[in-house]
Amino acid sequence: MGDHGKALAQRVGAAILERDNSSRFLGVVLDEIRPGFARMSMTVTEDMLNGVGICHGGFTYKLADDAFAYACNSYNRMAVALSCTITYPAAAKLGDRLTAECREVFRRGRNGTYDAMVSNQEGEVVALFRGQCRVIEGHIVEEHQ
Amino acid sequence: MGDHGKALAQRVGAAILERDNSSRFLGVVLDEIRPGFARMSMTVTEDMLNGVGICHGGFTYKLADDAFAYACNSYNRMAVALSCTITYPAAAKLGDRLTAECREVFRRGRNGTYDAMVSNQEGEVVALFRGQCRVIEGHIVEEHQ
Amino acid sequence: MGDHGKALAQRVGAAILERDNSSRFLGVVLDEIRPGFARMSMTVTEDMLNGVGICHGGFTYKLADDAFAYACNSYNRMAVALSCTITYPAAAKLGDRLTAECREVFRRGRNGTYDAMVSNQEGEVVALFRGQCRVIEGHIVEEHQ
Amino acid sequence: MGDHGKALAQRVGAAILERDNSSRFLGVVLDEIRPGFARMSMTVTEDMLNGVGICHGGFTYKLADDAFAYACNSYNRMAVALSCTITYPAAAKLGDRLTAECREVFRRGRNGTYDAMVSNQEGEVVALFRGQCRVIEGHIVEEHQ
Repeated sequence: MGDHGKALAQRVGAAILERDNSSRFLGVVLDEIRPGFARMSMTVTEDMLNGVGICHGGFTYKLADDAFAYACNSYNRMAVALSCTITYPAAAKLGDRLTAECREVFRRGRNGTYDAMVSNQEGEVVALFRGQCRVIEGHIVEEHQ
Repeated sequence: MGDHGKALAQRVGAAILERDNSSRFLGVVLDEIRPGFARMSMTVTEDMLNGVGICHGGFTYKLADDAFAYACNSYNRMAVALSCTITYPAAAKLGDRLTAECREVFRRGRNGTYDAMVSNQEGEVVALFRGQCRVIEGHIVEEHQ
Repeated sequence: MGDHGKALAQRVGAAILERDNSSRFLGVVLDEIRPGFARMSMTVTEDMLNGVGICHGGFTYKLADDAFAYACNSYNRMAVALSCTITYPAAAKLGDRLTAECREVFRRGRNGTYDAMVSNQEGEVVALFRGQCRVIEGHIVEEHQ
Repeated sequence: MGDHGKALAQRVGAAILERDNSSRFLGVVLDEIRPGFARMSMTVTEDMLNGVGICHGGFTYKLADDAFAYACNSYNRMAVALSCTITYPAAAKLGDRLTAECREVFRRGRNGTYDAMVSNQEGEVVALFRGQCRVIEGHIVEEHQ
């Protein structure tokens, strides 16, 4: 891929982020993006706590799914999530800084498999996520400008 | 189960909801709860839109996961999610009223499998969710009061 | 669907079965097929036992996946498995007669979600399976003959 | 882990294999085992073909699940599969030599997550598998002999 691929991925990331209400809403930031990879982070707030006082798994999932979405769109070909699986090895807690790293496991034709791992500020893994995507028609940014 | 089981499930639901910041945050309401079943709903807001202008799958997941959590705790035995899988047959859109119905597929000993279906106000299915839970020590409310 | 759909599903089932070495190999039989549904069964043999003396989960999976394949092809439109998930609530044992029933949960356009439940002769559930399929070009039998 | 861990893993692998009818039945061999890792292989035979003439996904799954079982028992603590997910990026064909490599993604306390990748003789990936296991009481071999 090289520098061109990385620069394109960064433009794609910036373009998605600009229109992405949900990330602003939850304070999710894009730390790094390159072809087939994205790293995103957020802090667990009071609003994210569930009935037993820990971070609702839905927000952890949302962060992992974000990293997945940015990673699988990083080639500037529109991709949509088909199915996702998540497990929760440990609880995320109030104030935790969660980081999701998503890597491409496999991509062929229009299908891709991506794995994301969500860790807290101490490196403890709080979620393991696997997503399947399908490339559809369309691009996120114009390629030649 | 009968009336006792249903009344207990309702007390459990009310108790979880009272402490559940995340549901208030997203406007999720508990429409119905009985042993092994829960129905919850929320409206897709501007804040929930992703970079392509549709509801971020993370919020749809969160709603399904809520219904799962309430359903699998409805017996007043604490249960935690082990793993969850979701697919998205259609997009949820701004203003959609989403309803997640979660039913118990199987429960034996400490393990349970639950399916949730998320539909919009027109009955269109936007997500299919399956969750595995494990019962741990503890209760949500006191049983004899 | 009615009688036509059911008759077509039966022709499809018979046609797949005729060419299906793997079912003969493991003694899998097709008990029932109708649009979006299939029921198949097999007996756990010595050959299917794993290192701890119970039925290897791979054979239980194979039976569930068979029922899935027959169910999702029952409309006479070729469909392929995209991803499958399975859990094992109980062990299958030597001599068990296992039955897999697969039902369509959802179908829209080219995508479908199917659930199979595998039980033993006493009705005990030994596996819960969920499969995602995608309809591709092609038919299994000629529709007008 | 070092040499001791690897030697123990090899003794565990040999012990499971000796009692494992299902691997003999399908011609599965254990190519390598070390703590948290196993590589196994088999050849696609006529008996494994499905109704459309390719390797039934159940056998590919079985091979991946084997590698998972050997990998997650490699510490000589009995572990059982809780749930498994598989996707099929490409078809396996008659005569293909399939190799499944399973690696530990995460292990903490009694829970583990393992990923297996199944490739053919040309290195083409035909299946991606993820399994969750739970450690139970018991050992496969005696530790001090």
